[in-house]
Amino acid sequence: MRARVALDAHGSDENPGPEVAGALAAIAEAQTEIVLVGDQPRLEAEVRKLRGNIPAELSFVHAPDVITMEDAPAKARRKKDASMVRAFDLVKAHQAEAVVTAGNSGAAMMLGTLVVGRLPGVIRPAIVNHFPTIDGGTTIMLDMGANVDCKPEWLAQFATMGSIYARSVLKIAEPRVGLVANGTEEGKGSESVRATHELLKTAPVKYIGLVEPHELFKGGCDVFVVDGFAGNLILKTTEGVVDAVFTLLKREIKARPLAMLGAMLAAPAFRAVKAKSDYDEYGAATLLGVDGAAFIGHGRSNPKAIKNAIKFARRMVESGANEAIASGLAANPPERISRG
Amino acid sequence: MRARVALDAHGSDENPGPEVAGALAAIAEAQTEIVLVGDQPRLEAEVRKLRGNIPAELSFVHAPDVITMEDAPAKARRKKDASMVRAFDLVKAHQAEAVVTAGNSGAAMMLGTLVVGRLPGVIRPAIVNHFPTIDGGTTIMLDMGANVDCKPEWLAQFATMGSIYARSVLKIAEPRVGLVANGTEEGKGSESVRATHELLKTAPVKYIGLVEPHELFKGGCDVFVVDGFAGNLILKTTEGVVDAVFTLLKREIKARPLAMLGAMLAAPAFRAVKAKSDYDEYGAATLLGVDGAAFIGHGRSNPKAIKNAIKFARRMVESGANEAIASGLAANPPERISRG
Repeated sequence: MRARVALDAHGSDENPGPEVAGALAAIAEAQTEIVLVGDQPRLEAEVRKLRGNIPAELSFVHAPDVITMEDAPAKARRKKDASMVRAFDLVKAHQAEAVVTAGNSGAAMMLGTLVVGRLPGVIRPAIVNHFPTIDGGTTIMLDMGANVDCKPEWLAQFATMGSIYARSVLKIAEPRVGLVANGTEEGKGSESVRATHELLKTAPVKYIGLVEPHELFKGGCDVFVVDGFAGNLILKTTEGVVDAVFTLLKREIKARPLAMLGAMLAAPAFRAVKAKSDYDEYGAATLLGVDGAAFIGHGRSNPKAIKNAIKFARRMVESGANEAIASGLAANPPERISRG
Repeated sequence: MRARVALDAHGSDENPGPEVAGALAAIAEAQTEIVLVGDQPRLEAEVRKLRGNIPAELSFVHAPDVITMEDAPAKARRKKDASMVRAFDLVKAHQAEAVVTAGNSGAAMMLGTLVVGRLPGVIRPAIVNHFPTIDGGTTIMLDMGANVDCKPEWLAQFATMGSIYARSVLKIAEPRVGLVANGTEEGKGSESVRATHELLKTAPVKYIGLVEPHELFKGGCDVFVVDGFAGNLILKTTEGVVDAVFTLLKREIKARPLAMLGAMLAAPAFRAVKAKSDYDEYGAATLLGVDGAAFIGHGRSNPKAIKNAIKFARRMVESGANEAIASGLAANPPERISRG
């Protein structure tokens, strides 16, 4: 399937620099067709500055307005000439198969759901985040914040969508699916988790039961299912702990001259850990369940993060993940799962 | 107030070694009255082995049975001669003011609530965990798992109990209380969080609003209020991330001879970070809202963790935290808070 990526050029904090550089890097790496959406004269000038000419794979759509972090997601759609809105419009109009933005994530979720629309059979789209495991693999967790209060039927559907995504995009042959809970014994979990646990026992996935969040980095489970409230708290806890550990380490090392010398010698090891835990590697979170590939990056995205988000977006289109999700859900509608 | 601590001698994985050594360390440090509950002949032999004689502050209650990790919490009470059950019985019978156990935490919560009983006015006891901040302070979060599904009135009461605990036991003059959510803007949070947010606006605490979990280590909030499901997930995420970061660092350092040398030079800095993030420093979690001081430690507790749990238990009794909580709740019953 043809994979044209619509890139919102005015999403990141430092836009459009990271977007333009990331797009050019993606084209250099894999000749991806990219539509840069934003202030066209400025974008063209930026491209020429970086590489002299406009590559054949790159086209432009002029969109002079911008969605800011202050824009209420529900009202984003009204800014018809905003780069993010136009980027989602392109997918809706089948002029692109994927969209990447590093802007206001609430607005992006809203545009994905309302403008691009849901895949047939999807009750609620969900946000998927990727995590590195200590053995070099990748796990995913969903929902990371698109749906704050989730019904058991939605969570069961996240399991199916996540499993198909892991198989199609991450090439995991038989993804193990776990339901996030405060313990692994039968009967653990909130009321909603206990009801979902029953649904998942008969769902069309390799369900391994309740899992605790400290398993996230260990590699024993490929797809972690959680409601968007708890998922978002887990994500932000992860960021907070990594920050705190490295801040403390830096401070204690700086207080000791010998340790400073030691840290210089150990710097390549630190860099290797940083690269493994690096947000840039995965580029962006996936809004799964919409009728297109939608990737939402961090405001702090650098060119590498943008490039990798484009790469994942293209891979998702080419893998046929959405077609597989639509047919998977058609074969197992929520009603049938519920009767389980 | 007299502070006698009943110590379950058969709770930790390596029991009774850590318990006996921890009790002796607590006595050596601060002449604490401790009742060791368990297999008395064995415990007496262990004490004599470690210090020759039985110190005056130490007494024994014989309890030949043991609660294991396999015992269902709801049935723990039936093992009348188990060390954990007898330790809680002592508080109930006013033969001790505090109880410390490193055993089955579900059973301990059940015994605290059913045997010792709730403080007047408390709807639900909650588990309090302590976290170190990067600036050397301490924050607490509750509930960490005693109540999986929480009503807004319970969460509002956790805020009051946590605030009084932080003032009495941690000596924070005016604790800042935050409600854990997936964002700080008005309207964020689950349905239950949004309802709690309204209650807290008029609660008798210094409420600073919605807080995200990456603030936990930064020191801008003293008391984090969360339901027991999400709280437990946050705790286990924290443990998982710290483990993963140090496992990865160790592996990358070992793969590089120069980095190995560097890590040796930097070892004191690593040890300082480990000490700051060390579970042993806080010893145990507090079951807050029961009519006594109840501290529940990790199965992996070492003598230092036991000693510190005893120290906190004693400090809690001497601070009059429970009396302050009972009068605080009497002055602000949930009905009045609800009416706002």
